[in-house]
Amino acid sequence: MTATDKQAFHARLLEIGKERYHDKHPFHAMLHGGRCTISQVRAWVINRYYYQSRIPMKDAAFLSRCDDPDLRRAWRSRIEDHDGGTEEGGGIRRWLRLAEAVGLDPDYVASTRGVLPSTRFAVDAYVAFVRERPLLEAVASSLTELFAPKIHSERIAGLLEHYTFADEAALAYFRQRLNEAPSDVEFGLAYVLDHADTREKQDAGAAALTFKTDVLWSQLDALYSAYVTPGRVPPGAWDGREGVVREPVAREAAE
Amino acid sequence: MTATDKQAFHARLLEIGKERYHDKHPFHAMLHGGRCTISQVRAWVINRYYYQSRIPMKDAAFLSRCDDPDLRRAWRSRIEDHDGGTEEGGGIRRWLRLAEAVGLDPDYVASTRGVLPSTRFAVDAYVAFVRERPLLEAVASSLTELFAPKIHSERIAGLLEHYTFADEAALAYFRQRLNEAPSDVEFGLAYVLDHADTREKQDAGAAALTFKTDVLWSQLDALYSAYVTPGRVPPGAWDGREGVVREPVAREAAE
Repeated sequence: MTATDKQAFHARLLEIGKERYHDKHPFHAMLHGGRCTISQVRAWVINRYYYQSRIPMKDAAFLSRCDDPDLRRAWRSRIEDHDGGTEEGGGIRRWLRLAEAVGLDPDYVASTRGVLPSTRFAVDAYVAFVRERPLLEAVASSLTELFAPKIHSERIAGLLEHYTFADEAALAYFRQRLNEAPSDVEFGLAYVLDHADTREKQDAGAAALTFKTDVLWSQLDALYSAYVTPGRVPPGAWDGREGVVREPVAREAAE
Repeated sequence: MTATDKQAFHARLLEIGKERYHDKHPFHAMLHGGRCTISQVRAWVINRYYYQSRIPMKDAAFLSRCDDPDLRRAWRSRIEDHDGGTEEGGGIRRWLRLAEAVGLDPDYVASTRGVLPSTRFAVDAYVAFVRERPLLEAVASSLTELFAPKIHSERIAGLLEHYTFADEAALAYFRQRLNEAPSDVEFGLAYVLDHADTREKQDAGAAALTFKTDVLWSQLDALYSAYVTPGRVPPGAWDGREGVVREPVAREAAE
């Protein structure tokens, strides 16, 4: 593989994001544009929690298959970033702060009881993928992080502008990801560009990233199908009431 | 567990079907009532093929974990029923006849290229469940067959009444399942009722059957979301044109 081949492969990966990343999904436009009801925001928080909660398990599955200590050392911070310490910190706790801000009982959200089955199937498919596929593909599937900073920035701006619950504490998850993701993705991208040294491996890497965009897209489809229109909640999923402890307080009123 | 406990558990399993089996999903009413467009029928045929194609793999995963030769012998016919012989027969080939009847290229359908990611995630979750969970739960997850004869009968009647493509050859899959499923499910039900000999195991069996109803429901949600309303096909999924080789011929015209 020449430097030109590598560049072309890099461009191919970026193209996958341009075409398939979930910032193209109508649910995101609704969310960032302030057109979600508080119930729809809550449904998103409840379901997206399931994804957050499985990321450290996914990364642990990755570590469990790495026989290179350097690779394990570089990758391990992802688990720390999401899980935090025994007492505080970490993306999962920050996500639960968002849950509180939208008026949900964080213990209810953490129980994952109301999560849509389709959310579960998509997220579990991601964990299984990383547990079972070649390391190159496992790393490539993480490269949706290439496209995340833009969506996080849009989300912070859009949520702050449109929703009374949104303040810096509620949105700390996204702010922190803006700090963490760039170095993670720099490492992952370099790994994939270096290790995909045949056309076949490039194809496998591109397929892995495509798979991951499907995992993200499928979660928003599930939300849209259950809670937007025609709003048909599957048996057993969150009914719009369970776990709701209070209505969000307007920022002005709280000050 | 007394005979009364067993009866109550049996009733509990039947109740799960009554509340959650996918015959309650609006897509089924559309399909059986003749309110699906030919494109929607095709989308169902393409996606449901993925489920059919994974059933023998699911049953092989089950066999691979059975150390009781009698149980393996009793279970093995499920693989034969779906895969058929090397030259002919089997549910998968019968499903591809349905694909032909609705004007699809059976090779396209068999490639599973156009399958919705959410269909894949749900079906793969089922295969993983049977590969990973205790045998009792794996058997219990097959008990949606308790509710299948009714849906197959409704489907045969509804498709024959409402769609020009439907004739006995096209619907052979369902007719045959009406012959096979009752003895399969009789065996599975007896196994689950006998082996769930603690309250904890009964709960696990009920949860496994509930999980399976989620797997089926999620597939119809995915179809509805992509091809009914608002009809938002996810990136890469079947576009309504690929694999279509001809319009179905009306039965009258063909005679």
